[in-house]
Parts: sequence; C-alpha cells; structure tokens
Amino acid sequence: MAMSENTKPGLFVGLLVVVCVVITVSIIVTRDPVPQPEPLFSQPYEYVCQDVTGSGPRCVKVVRTDDSNGTSLNVCKLTCGERRLIWPYPVSVEGMGTEMSRFIPINVMYGDISSHSTQIQDFIKENWEAFKGNLEMIHPDYVTNGVGEWTTSDTYNKFKVYVNFIIKTGVSTISRTTIESYSLNISSTAERSTVTIEAITYFGARHGLETFSQLLNYDAENNCLQMINSLGRIYDEPFFRHRGLSLDTSRNYIPVKSIKKTIDAMAANKLNYFHWHITDTHSFPFKMESWPQMHEYGAYSPRQVYSHKDVSEIVRYGNVRGVKVYPELDSPAHIGNGWQWGPTQELGTLAVCVNQEPWQSYCVEPPCGQLNIANPRIYDVLASVYKELADAFSPVQYFHFGGDEVSIDCWNSSAEIRDWMSAKYDNVTKDSYFDEWANFHSRSMEIFENVTGITDVKGILWTSSLTEAGMAAKYLDPEKFIIQIWTYQNNNDSLGDVEDIASKGFELIITNADAWYLDCGVGAWVGNGFNWCSPYKPWQTVYDNNPLLMVSPEYRDKIIGGEAALWTEQADAQTLDSKLWPRGAALAERLWSNPNGTWADAELRMILHRQRLVERGIAAERLQPQWCFENEGLCYIL
Amino acid sequence: MAMSENTKPGLFVGLLVVVCVVITVSIIVTRDPVPQPEPLFSQPYEYVCQDVTGSGPRCVKVVRTDDSNGTSLNVCKLTCGERRLIWPYPVSVEGMGTEMSRFIPINVMYGDISSHSTQIQDFIKENWEAFKGNLEMIHPDYVTNGVGEWTTSDTYNKFKVYVNFIIKTGVSTISRTTIESYSLNISSTAERSTVTIEAITYFGARHGLETFSQLLNYDAENNCLQMINSLGRIYDEPFFRHRGLSLDTSRNYIPVKSIKKTIDAMAANKLNYFHWHITDTHSFPFKMESWPQMHEYGAYSPRQVYSHKDVSEIVRYGNVRGVKVYPELDSPAHIGNGWQWGPTQELGTLAVCVNQEPWQSYCVEPPCGQLNIANPRIYDVLASVYKELADAFSPVQYFHFGGDEVSIDCWNSSAEIRDWMSAKYDNVTKDSYFDEWANFHSRSMEIFENVTGITDVKGILWTSSLTEAGMAAKYLDPEKFIIQIWTYQNNNDSLGDVEDIASKGFELIITNADAWYLDCGVGAWVGNGFNWCSPYKPWQTVYDNNPLLMVSPEYRDKIIGGEAALWTEQADAQTLDSKLWPRGAALAERLWSNPNGTWADAELRMILHRQRLVERGIAAERLQPQWCFENEGLCYIL
Repeated sequence: MAMSENTKPGLFVGLLVVVCVVITVSIIVTRDPVPQPEPLFSQPYEYVCQDVTGSGPRCVKVVRTDDSNGTSLNVCKLTCGERRLIWPYPVSVEGMGTEMSRFIPINVMYGDISSHSTQIQDFIKENWEAFKGNLEMIHPDYVTNGVGEWTTSDTYNKFKVYVNFIIKTGVSTISRTTIESYSLNISSTAERSTVTIEAITYFGARHGLETFSQLLNYDAENNCLQMINSLGRIYDEPFFRHRGLSLDTSRNYIPVKSIKKTIDAMAANKLNYFHWHITDTHSFPFKMESWPQMHEYGAYSPRQVYSHKDVSEIVRYGNVRGVKVYPELDSPAHIGNGWQWGPTQELGTLAVCVNQEPWQSYCVEPPCGQLNIANPRIYDVLASVYKELADAFSPVQYFHFGGDEVSIDCWNSSAEIRDWMSAKYDNVTKDSYFDEWANFHSRSMEIFENVTGITDVKGILWTSSLTEAGMAAKYLDPEKFIIQIWTYQNNNDSLGDVEDIASKGFELIITNADAWYLDCGVGAWVGNGFNWCSPYKPWQTVYDNNPLLMVSPEYRDKIIGGEAALWTEQADAQTLDSKLWPRGAALAERLWSNPNGTWADAELRMILHRQRLVERGIAAERLQPQWCFENEGLCYIL
Repeated sequence: MAMSENTKPGLFVGLLVVVCVVITVSIIVTRDPVPQPEPLFSQPYEYVCQDVTGSGPRCVKVVRTDDSNGTSLNVCKLTCGERRLIWPYPVSVEGMGTEMSRFIPINVMYGDISSHSTQIQDFIKENWEAFKGNLEMIHPDYVTNGVGEWTTSDTYNKFKVYVNFIIKTGVSTISRTTIESYSLNISSTAERSTVTIEAITYFGARHGLETFSQLLNYDAENNCLQMINSLGRIYDEPFFRHRGLSLDTSRNYIPVKSIKKTIDAMAANKLNYFHWHITDTHSFPFKMESWPQMHEYGAYSPRQVYSHKDVSEIVRYGNVRGVKVYPELDSPAHIGNGWQWGPTQELGTLAVCVNQEPWQSYCVEPPCGQLNIANPRIYDVLASVYKELADAFSPVQYFHFGGDEVSIDCWNSSAEIRDWMSAKYDNVTKDSYFDEWANFHSRSMEIFENVTGITDVKGILWTSSLTEAGMAAKYLDPEKFIIQIWTYQNNNDSLGDVEDIASKGFELIITNADAWYLDCGVGAWVGNGFNWCSPYKPWQTVYDNNPLLMVSPEYRDKIIGGEAALWTEQADAQTLDSKLWPRGAALAERLWSNPNGTWADAELRMILHRQRLVERGIAAERLQPQWCFENEGLCYIL
C-alpha cells in the first residue's frame, strides 16, 4: 500500500521529465551563443626551419613578410630536424615526412578490432579514450571555452584519421617477459591518414599509440590539430625492461586521484613499473580486512587510506596504460605506526621502539619502529598483510620487502629481544643480529609464498648493511631476491658493494640517490639547513645517469633497469606533479633509449615534452623561460 | 517582422521554463539522496593538551580510554598553548579562552554596516564572501560531496555567529600612510557568539576578520566548525608598513587567475604589496592601446597578455583584500622583446642588443636588450607606456623603474650610441655612461610625472652599480627614489653599499637574494649545474632574515619593509603556489611581527598555517611528514 502510493509521484515525475527534456531541446535551439573570448591579435612572427649555426636545423622565429598566416611554432617543431618531438626517442625512425594533415579529434577513429579478445578490445577502448582526451586537452579553445565543442572551421571537418592496431598475441597482463616493441607507419591521401601500429602485445601497441600522439600538435595559427602525414617506419623497443618510479605514500598520504594522474604521466613516457612504497614507520594507509587495527592505528585519518578496491583499481588502471603496479611492505625496519595494537589482541608486542625517544638513538629519522623479531606472532600478522596485499595487487610478480636501515640499537633496546638473542647465541654480537635480520627476510619470503601460493615471485630488497661487499651472497639467495641499489654512483666504496652484489648473480634495479632521488634539495624538516640528500637533482643529472656505469661491463646484464624515487617527507598531492615531472621524463629516456648522448642533445625535445605534459594536465616544473622555447637553441652556454 | 517572429519561440520557451522549474522542485522532493562516501572508521586516538617536556603545552596524541569521541587534533590546536594558530602573530593577545562553540557557516553573518559609505559596504561584502568561501573550503565534506550542502546534524544548526565591524574612517584606497591596526573581541552565550572588530580603516578591519578566521577550525570528530568563543582583546598592527611579494610575469607568463590566487594567499598572511614586475627583456605582456606593437612584438602569444581591464581588475581585487598592486617597468636594461618595431614606425631603433649574440657579452642571461639612450624618441614611447600603466594601475603611489644590471658593453656596441656619446663627452669613459644611465632615470621620472600628472609618486630602483658605496646620492635624489636592496646580507661589501644608501636618506625595501629570492636551488637553465642563486632558501632562512640587520641601528628607520621575489625563469602557473607558499608566510610573519625569536619558535604554527593555506586551495609546498603535524614537537634535532 505504502509502495503503491510512492509509485504515483514517481510516474508523475517521470512524465514531466519527458516534457522537460523536450523543452530543453527547444531551449538549446534558441539559447544565446556560448560567450566567445576576445578576438586574438595577430603576431608579426612566423617560424622557419633553418640550420643557422651548422649544428642542425632549428625552428627560427622571424618577422613575417606578408599578412598571411605563417607556420606556427608547434607546426614547425613537428617538421623541423631529425629528432623533432618524440620522447623517449625510438630505436629507429625511417622516412618521416614533413607534410601535415589538418584535422579535428572527432574524426580520429580506430579500425576493426573485433579479431581481438574481449579483454584486449576493452583495453584498446579505454586507452583510446585516454588518447582522445589528450587530443582534446592540447587544444586551448577546448579548455578555455569550457563547453567541449570544437570551433574549428569546416575546412578540417572532413579529414579522417584511422588508426589500425595489429596485435599478434592475446597477452593481457604485464610481466617481466612482456614484449613491448612496436612499429608504426603513416600514409595519407587528401581525405584521410592511415596509421598502422603493429606489435606482439597490446602493451607494445599502446606504446605505439603514445608515439603517434607525439607526431601531432595544436596549430594556433589555424586553430586545429596537425599531424605528420607520412612515415615509413618507426621501430621501437626499450633498452631496459624495468623502468619505474617509486612513490612513498606513508610519510605523506597521496590521494588515489593523484596516483592515477602519475600513472597517466608514466604512460606518456613509456615507464612501466610503479613501485608503491605503500607503508613505512610514519603511517599504514592500506585498509586491512583481517586486521583492521593496522589502519585504525596506523592511518593518518579515516579519509587517508587505500581500500582493496582502491588498490585493485589502480593496478587495473596501470595495466591498461602499460604500467605494472607492485607493492612494497618495507620491513623489518621502516614499520611502526599501525603495529602498536598487538597487546590488545594478546599477540604481544609486534613492534619495538615505536615512536621511541630520543629518535636519534634508534632510527635515521622520526619516528622509529622495527618488527619484534623475538615475537613469532609477527609472522602471523605478516602472513595476513602479505595475503591481502597479494590479493589487492594481483597478479603479483614482484614483491618489495624493503629491508633497509635496520637499527641494531633499536632491537637491542628491547629486553624481550635481548633475552631471545641470548637464548639463541652464546655470545650476541652485531653479526648475530645480522644473521637474524637475514633469517627474517628468508622466513618472510617463505611465508609470502605459502600464504599466497605464488611460487615464482621475485623479492626485491634495498641495499643495506646486509648487502655490503662480501655480505649479500652470504645472507640472501640471488634466485629469490633482486637488489635495488640506492647507494651513490659517485662513491667508490658503494660501487664496490654493487660490483660484489652483481658478481654474485643478483639482478639489480638502479636508484642511486645522487641522481634519482627526487625529493632532495629543499630545507631540512628536522632542524634547519637542507634535507639530507641535497642538493636538488636537476633533470640534466637525472638524464645523464647511466645505470650501466654502476658495474663492470661483464656484469651489466644483471641490471634490469632503474627507478627514480620520491620519498614524501616533504611532498604530497600539492607538489607531486612538479617533483616527478619533467625529471621522470629524463629518467624515462635514459631507461628506454639509453642514449649515447647527454642532456644537451635532448634539451630542445625535453622543453617541448614538458609543455606536452602540462597540456595534458600534469603540473610539471618549468625548466626555462618561454623565450627559450620560442627561440630554439639560444639559451646555451659557450 | 523578423523580430516579432523571433519573439514567439522565446515566449513559448519562457512559459515552458516556468513549468520546468515547478517540475524541478517536485523532482528534488523525490530524487535519490546524494551518494554518501563510505562510512569512516573510528580511530583509537584523541588529543590532550599537555606540557610533556617542560617547554610548554602541546597537543599530545593518546589512545582513547573509552568509545566516546575525543578531542580532535584541530580542536586541540585551537585551545592548546599560548600562541596557538594565528599567523602572523599579533602584537598582543589578552584573555583568550579555551571554550569552543560549534557552528555551521550559513549561520555566520555580519552586523549592521549601513553607516559606512557604499564603497566600504561593497568592500565588506566582497571580503565577507571570500571569508565565507574559506569557511566552506576547510570543511572536507563540503568539498568531497561536491554539492555544497552542509550535512552536520541539527545540534549545531541554530548557533549564530555575528561579526560587527566598527570602522572609524572612510579610507577606501591603500596608501603608504594607511593605518592597518585593528582590535578583536569575542563574547558568547549558549545561542550565539559576537565578534567585534574595531579599526581605523577598512583595511585594518579586513586584517581583523582574517585573524578571526584563524580562531576557528574544522572538527573531524563532530563534523562541524568550532571557534574559540571568548577573547578579551587582540590588538594588532604591523611592524613594517611595506610587506610584499615581487612577481615576474615576463620570463614566463602567469595567468590572471593565478595572480588573483596569489593575492588571496597574500591576504591570508596580511602581506600588503604586490610588486608586479610585468615586463622584462623576455616578453612584454602588457596590452598597449597607444602602441599595440609593444605586445604584438613582445608577448609570447596572443593569449598571454594582460589587458588594461585585466590589470584594473587585479588592482581592484587586491585593494579589497588589503593588497596594493604596483607596477615595475624595468629599464634601461631588462627590456628587449616588444621594443623592436621602432624602425617600422620611423621612430628609429628603440632598443639595442635585442636578442644579440653571443649574449654573454651583453647581458647576464639570454636574451639581451637595453633602451637606446641615443634616440630621444624612446621617451615618447616611454611616456605612453607610463601613461597606460598609470591608468591601469590607478591610483599609483609607487612606480618601480627597475634600473638594475645595465651593461655598458651593450650600449657601447651600438655605433649610434657611441657616436652620440662622443658628441657629448670629450673622453667617453665608464663614468660617462654612468652619468647617462643616471640621467635616464631622472628624465624618466620627470616624464612620468608630466604625462600622468602624479607629482607625489615615489620611484623605486633596484640596487645596481649606480648605488654602490658613495654613488647613490651622486646619481639619484633620495626624495624621489626608494632603493630596493637585492644584494646579499651575508656579504660585508654589499652591506657597506646598503649602509651608504641609508645614510644618504633613501628609504629602503629589503629583498636580499640570499634569503628572499624564492626561485633559487633548482637546476641551471643555461648549461647544467644549479641556477645562479642556489641553494634553495628554506622557510627557516626566510623567517630568520631580519631586515633591520642590513644597516646600523641609526638608519633602521629608513627600512620601510621588504619583499620576497619570485623570478620566473623556472616557474609558471604550474608551480607558482609551491614556490611562493608557505615561504611567503615566513616572510609575512617576519615583516608583520618582526619576532625576537627564530623559526624554531614558530615551527608548530607554521606547519598548521601551511595546512590552512592548502585547505583554502593554495598548493603550498609540504614541509614535513603528516606524522609531525599529528605528533607536535617530535620532529626535532637535539
């Protein structure tokens, strides 16, 4: 009865809504036009492609000789010189033309994809939407008039751009063996361009579409998009298979939206590993189902957590964009907040030294905390955390166990641990603690494998006291663990350590702090002066940092790639983009192309690529005055 | 006839719109509820105000002993300790209570303002809207549910907050004599709080409202706002009358929207001078009506200009927010692009060395350019520029003439200038050029006064070779010019220059580059390494930089204040907020309060104030992990 009464207004409203929709259509017909911005004045310049200095052709700004629209800067950059505007630079580029086609985004479409699996079709469609979104964003009117309507004239309305995807396998998940190569060809008639992207996997094809998106540009003179309309062949594949960013979400929380934007920017740079340092001593933002105490005690606030759903969505989002998202649960140090509740559940003390003072005695930065190795119940809790992380991050191929900066003093400050050690060792020394630290890693790995059932996982560990020269192979199994190198390249002692690790058969991921730590160079956050890894790492330093130089030539094949790291003591959503970009792009070209040249050879493309990232909504840091962008090659030193 | 036909559909639509509005109301009644976010879990913590270390009370995070809502961090910070959360800190605070009132923004209103002039009433209303906007922004639900509806329970719905403004004069324009003092009192009953703000001028009252906005906070535990509900009296006035930011919009263009946001942030910090370095050698973005060639040749693009209307609106916007906006036309150096069109109008060469190569020979950074002092027509053009700037920036009390980094080599590279100098001087020396440089400034000032009819304008000049020890008084009139000091404080030679300038009777604005240049500390933009004024200036350095220490005690009254400068070679809208804030806030407290203490005494308030700026939409840089914010005083060094 109550239900039937409720139904009536619903029906009534429904009918009126229909009337309303009809009315709305009438209103659209007679409404005022969208307010147009003030007409733009005409500039006296155009650009010509010239080799002024003998160092290669550049776009030169010249005063126009007549009143016709000249070549705009963006169009000149599309056509001038050999390398032009692809970032990172491909393996080979053959037969790239200098003719342009003008078009509008609604006339860009993909060819028949029905032969692919439903999953691959869905991937192509989602990635296509992202691509189309980028096209729309690079057109200023589209953004500034705010209505999403294209106001270009009829001249370009009919030109069609077809993109055909030829993908040879059904591989739908990124793994360490995923083939990322692709080739790209463009041919055109007066009415249409045909872009053909051929790849072994969807992931290669995705890279190909990204490259195509860099062969077009907004043309301000004609208020449309223009693309290079003939290209023999680009063939491309990465130099290193592991090209990543490591992001800490524990020192400061990073919203899901910002992480997705970071993945968008990674995709624009063909970076393929997002290493999520999800927890640390400071906070535990992963929302646990089995032990909700972890985030209740460990998250900064109830709004600053990642649910399983959040994580899975980020993993899925990354996969479609060619980015594998993998977790780090740093331990046995770099834990603390989130582990204090053991006694309330009769599990005993799970972590020692948590927030202990004076922090200087027990850790490298406040707050302190380490797992209580004397309490076997920590492995029960770890098993649950591993299981939930492995589920949320599924499928898992890499799991980062952290393993850095263990303080023996912290462990030794606990009576429970001291007693336990004394019971195990006749004479407790630093080495005894190192043995237990190594045991912890072996046991963690075993538990991970048992609880998740994943037997081919590779563990990753940061360099630490356990990996100093002569140590790594004693304590760790090179078949099970990859070592991530954060020690300095400009330090012979560290290089000795790295050489030893490589010589023992460990695979290496390079993240040397003197080039690839992106948080350095601002003020200190404890005391005054500068933060520990100052100075700032300029994009030039990031670019020139060749991972291969970390070891002797005979061990270079152990280097699977590198990652830049952003530790977030002094970063959050407000500055995430500008800390990561465009320096992350410098990293990306180093890892994708590993060029023989230096930053100086890449500078013009870098400045342009930074603009591209900004046009796509990434708040990348500005590297130079716009004058340098408009006057190529004139911001130089002798 | 056509008109009458057109009228019909309009009327028809009009009637249907009325129907539609009625329907819309029905729909609201029966529509689905706004989707609510997932319910938030409860944290086991609350905050208590305790003096743990004997260094004063702090908010200490403790595990709750029962299931009731405890005191949230925000509320604890409102009530704990003497200084709490006002930034910059007032002259005196008496009788500040620790009781709170809970309320929602729609019940905050101002009392009768009808006794004020219409203009002051309009100012109060506009500033009130900004204040209300800030209240809404600090409430997370308001932002995250996206519908602008308050979802707090009825408990707080009825509590009223009245703000009364008592303003004793009708002063409606900021000038160098504007009195900015105010006093603030709060008293409350169970049903209402009454806030009384008393000031000589509207501008003082505006500061008072800003201070009141810092006596309230969002309370996450109860999902409402809370305010301190009793306060005997805050009395407040600035230490320095000139507290500013200098922003360069020539190296890179800064959109109008970003400038307005900068003014909002300045207002939140009681900064009162926005020094707009609107042009430089790189670009000329001011849209000239008399000589459109200036921006046609000089702007980076047709979208990157400031019209008279843009400028006037920014000046008006600033004035309502207590911020005086004043222009700099840097000359005779730091001009170039925008001045190349003279020959086409038969005015001759207006500028020499423009974009000349190699730039190292003629200027300090690319591109080069200086006014052609041999061509008297430059004064005709300058007169037009002065007139248009003075109109757009009206009313003008300060006009910055720049005057820094003149290259004698640039002038001497022009045959026209060499000939002209030889005709004037028997023996052309560096001193002859200095004489002409000084003549240029005197003549510019004269022309400015003539063309604008403003006779009480104060010119401002940067320190330069003309202001080295023994020079300033020889070349410049201390009655006409204020000197802005950008030379280092940590340099005895520079300090000698400054002492001499002060001793000759010039007023000083302090902007020493070793503390108050906010662009330092990133990579170089010509070549590699670091930019010229590296390292980065941490907030601690900005805070501790006392302008009074630039001169001997006897000349301290010549220092009218200071400005931090952001040169934008490597900044644009993407990073403007994080380059300026929260370091601009450190500057603001130094200039408003000139505290005896150091950054260490202000640290807790600074971290909180940075959060406040972020809540208000300013993307201020993060200084510390959130853990430090939640664990006051524990991120320290011994």
